[in-house]
Amino acid sequence: MPVNLPSIENQILPPVQGVRLGWAEANIKKANRKDLLVIEVCDGTRVSGVFTQNRFCAAPVHICKKHLAAGQQIKALVINTGNANAGTGEQGMLDAQQTCEVLAQHLDVSANQVLPFSTGVILEHLPMDKLLAGLEPAVARLQADDWHAAAWSIMTTDIVPKAHATQCSIAGTTVQVTGISKGSGMIHPNMATMLGYLATDAAISQALLDEITKEIADLSFNCISVDGDTSTNDSFIILATGKADNPEITSRDDEGFDVLYSALLKSSQYLAKAIVRDGEGATKFITINVDGARTQHEAKTIGYAIAKSPLVKTAMFASDPNLGRVLAAIGYASRDCDSLNDLNVDNVQLYFGDTLVAESGGRAASYNEQAGQQIMNKAEIEMTVKLNRGSENATIWSCDFSYDYVKINAEYRT
Amino acid sequence: MPVNLPSIENQILPPVQGVRLGWAEANIKKANRKDLLVIEVCDGTRVSGVFTQNRFCAAPVHICKKHLAAGQQIKALVINTGNANAGTGEQGMLDAQQTCEVLAQHLDVSANQVLPFSTGVILEHLPMDKLLAGLEPAVARLQADDWHAAAWSIMTTDIVPKAHATQCSIAGTTVQVTGISKGSGMIHPNMATMLGYLATDAAISQALLDEITKEIADLSFNCISVDGDTSTNDSFIILATGKADNPEITSRDDEGFDVLYSALLKSSQYLAKAIVRDGEGATKFITINVDGARTQHEAKTIGYAIAKSPLVKTAMFASDPNLGRVLAAIGYASRDCDSLNDLNVDNVQLYFGDTLVAESGGRAASYNEQAGQQIMNKAEIEMTVKLNRGSENATIWSCDFSYDYVKINAEYRT
Repeated sequence: MPVNLPSIENQILPPVQGVRLGWAEANIKKANRKDLLVIEVCDGTRVSGVFTQNRFCAAPVHICKKHLAAGQQIKALVINTGNANAGTGEQGMLDAQQTCEVLAQHLDVSANQVLPFSTGVILEHLPMDKLLAGLEPAVARLQADDWHAAAWSIMTTDIVPKAHATQCSIAGTTVQVTGISKGSGMIHPNMATMLGYLATDAAISQALLDEITKEIADLSFNCISVDGDTSTNDSFIILATGKADNPEITSRDDEGFDVLYSALLKSSQYLAKAIVRDGEGATKFITINVDGARTQHEAKTIGYAIAKSPLVKTAMFASDPNLGRVLAAIGYASRDCDSLNDLNVDNVQLYFGDTLVAESGGRAASYNEQAGQQIMNKAEIEMTVKLNRGSENATIWSCDFSYDYVKINAEYRT
Repeated sequence: MPVNLPSIENQILPPVQGVRLGWAEANIKKANRKDLLVIEVCDGTRVSGVFTQNRFCAAPVHICKKHLAAGQQIKALVINTGNANAGTGEQGMLDAQQTCEVLAQHLDVSANQVLPFSTGVILEHLPMDKLLAGLEPAVARLQADDWHAAAWSIMTTDIVPKAHATQCSIAGTTVQVTGISKGSGMIHPNMATMLGYLATDAAISQALLDEITKEIADLSFNCISVDGDTSTNDSFIILATGKADNPEITSRDDEGFDVLYSALLKSSQYLAKAIVRDGEGATKFITINVDGARTQHEAKTIGYAIAKSPLVKTAMFASDPNLGRVLAAIGYASRDCDSLNDLNVDNVQLYFGDTLVAESGGRAASYNEQAGQQIMNKAEIEMTVKLNRGSENATIWSCDFSYDYVKINAEYRT
C-alpha cells in the first residue's frame, strides 16, 4: 500500500469555477474501469504546460506543444490511460490528431483548441474505435464537481488516485486550487510517466503563468524518482480560468502573487510526493536533502545518485542501515557532473535523520548502528548530505525497491 | 545460477612463470571460507593498474596508487573479502598500511612493495587481528599452480568463481595469460565492485603495459553493468613477469604485440562478462550494441541507459518483449549526454536479435510480437540500436533484474 498517503475519499476537492470534468469507461486496455477523461475549460482560461524531455516523446506530446504554440484559446483536454501512443510513428500522430478532431466536434470548437494526453504501454497503436466511442459519454458527463472521478480516470499502475485542493485569499477574494496526478513507475524527472493537472480560478497573465509553471515543475515533479526511467509522455499542466474576482496578477510584485505561488507549489508538491508514496512496490518514503553544493546541478546529481541506486533502495526495503551504499553513491555522482570531480570526501557529512553517520571520509565516532536501525525502521526516512563547499541545495523525494517493484513491472502487460 | 558460465573446475588454469598464490581462511566476515589471497611476483615483474573513479574510494585504493606511483618493484598483492575498508577514514588508511607492513615482513620486502585490495561491506573497520593472523598461513601456502583456489578466495556475493586462461605465441615462444575476477553487485563501469587480476609471463615494457591496461579495461570491465552502482574498491591489475623468452615488446609495432594484446583482451572480456553472467539474481545475459553514433560517449550513454533501466531489466526477467521501454531509455539518454539533444528518433532503428522492431519513430511494419517473444525466451539476448548519425559504436553487457536481486541486496548483511 502507498506510504502514508490518505485516501482521496477523505479529501474535499472543491470545483474550480470554469472547469468541468467528464469520464468514460472506454475499454482501452481493461474493461470496467474509468480510462478516459475530458476536462473542459471556459473561454479566457490561461493554459501552460511542461512536457517530457524524452527524445522518443509520444505523439500527443507533439500535438500538445503544437496546439499551445498556435496560441488559440484552449477549450478542452482529453486524457486516456492504457496506451501511451508512444513509439507509434506517423500513425500515432494521426491518431492523436483524430482524437482532437472528434472531441472538438462534440464541443463545437476546433481541433487545435484541444490538448491530448496518453499514458500506458509504449509501441502499440491506440484502439481508436474504442477511444472515439468513449468521447460521447465523457462529454455527456461533464460537470464541475467531479474531481474524485477525474483522479480515478487517469490511473495506470497507480494503486490509489491522487488529488489535492487548497485555497488562498487574494485581495479579499478566495481563490481555489484543485488538481490531480497519476504515475507510479517510469518516474524520474524531466519528467516521469506522470501526468499532473492543476486548475485554479485565479486571474493571472499568460506570460507569468508560463514562467511559474516551469519553476513549480522544477520544485515538485522534477524532484522525484521512483526508478530513474524518464517516460515518453510526461506532462504537467496548469489551467487558470480567471473566474475568481481577483485583479489579474501580471507581475511577481502584484498583490496575491506570493500566496497564489505558494498555493500552486503546495498542491504540486503534494501531488508529486503522492506519486512517490504510491511508487511501484514502495514501502518507504525517502527524503534526500543535499546542502552546501556549489551548484544546483551538483546538489540534484548527488540527490539523484542516491535516489536511483538499486543498492541503496534495496537496503531501505530491508530496513538495513547499510549506509556505506549511500557514501558510494555520493562518490560516483561525479560520473554525471564534472564539477564534482574535485569533491573532497573528507568534508562530506552524512546525517540519517538527525544522526551524524559519516564525516572525515569515514564513520562518525559518535555513530552507532542501533541509532541507524531505529530511524531505518520507520516508513518515512530523511537523510541529509552536507557537502560543505557552497551554498546551493536541493531536495529529492524517492522510495525503496521491493519484490513488488519487480513483480509489478515483470507482469505489467499480462 | 549464472547465465551460461561454465564451472572453473572444467577449466585448465596453467601457472604463470614468476607468479605464486597463497590463500587463507581468516574469518573476516564468515567462518570456513577462503577470504584472503596473497599473490607474489618475481623481480622484474611489470605491474599496471586501473582503479575506481568513485570519490569515496577505499583506503587500499589510495595505498595501491601511492605504491605504484613510488615506482619500487612490486613484490606482492594482498586481497581480502568480507570488508571493503571503504568509508573508514584515517583508521582505514592505517589498517591498509599495516596490512602491507606485516605481509612485507613475512616476505622480507618493504611495505611499499605490496599492493592491498579489499572488497565487501562499506563503513566498517577491518578486523585487523583476524586479517593479520591470516597472512602467515597464506604465505605458507604460496605455490604457482593454485589459480582455482585463488579464484575462490576473492569472492563476495559471487555464486561461482571466475577465471580464464589463454596462450599466444610470440616469436616462437609460448606466452601464458591466466587471470581471475570477482564481482556480481555494485557493478557499473569506472569501475564496479569488481576485482580483476591478469598475469602473463610475457616481456613487455612498463610504458606500453600502462598504456594497454587502460585500453583493455575500457573494452572489457568498463563495458559492463549489473545495477549501475560504481563501487568504492574496483581494481584491475595486469602483472607481466617477463619470464617467457620473448624479446621484450616496447612498441605497438613490435613482433607479438598484436597477439599479446588480443590474448589479454580475450581474457579480460571473458572475466568481465563472467561478472555479468553471475550478476546478482541474473537469469539473462544481455548484449547491447549501439552503432552509428557521432561519438563514443553517445554510443556508451545509450547503451548504459538501456542496460541500467529497471523497466527494461524487469521486462527481460519476465521474458516480456515490452520493447517500448527500450525506446524510452534511448529517448532519455540525452539526460547524460548533451550531444544527444538533437537525436532524430525517426532515424533510429532497433533490432532485437536480427529482427527489426522499430524504425521511423515507431514499430516496424514487419515486426510481430511472436518473433520478439521467441528471442525473449532465450537466456542470451542481443539487441542493436542503429542511430544512423555517425560511425562510432559500443557494446555493453548487462543482465536482467529479478526477485533474487532484491533478495540478495536486501539481505546482504544478515
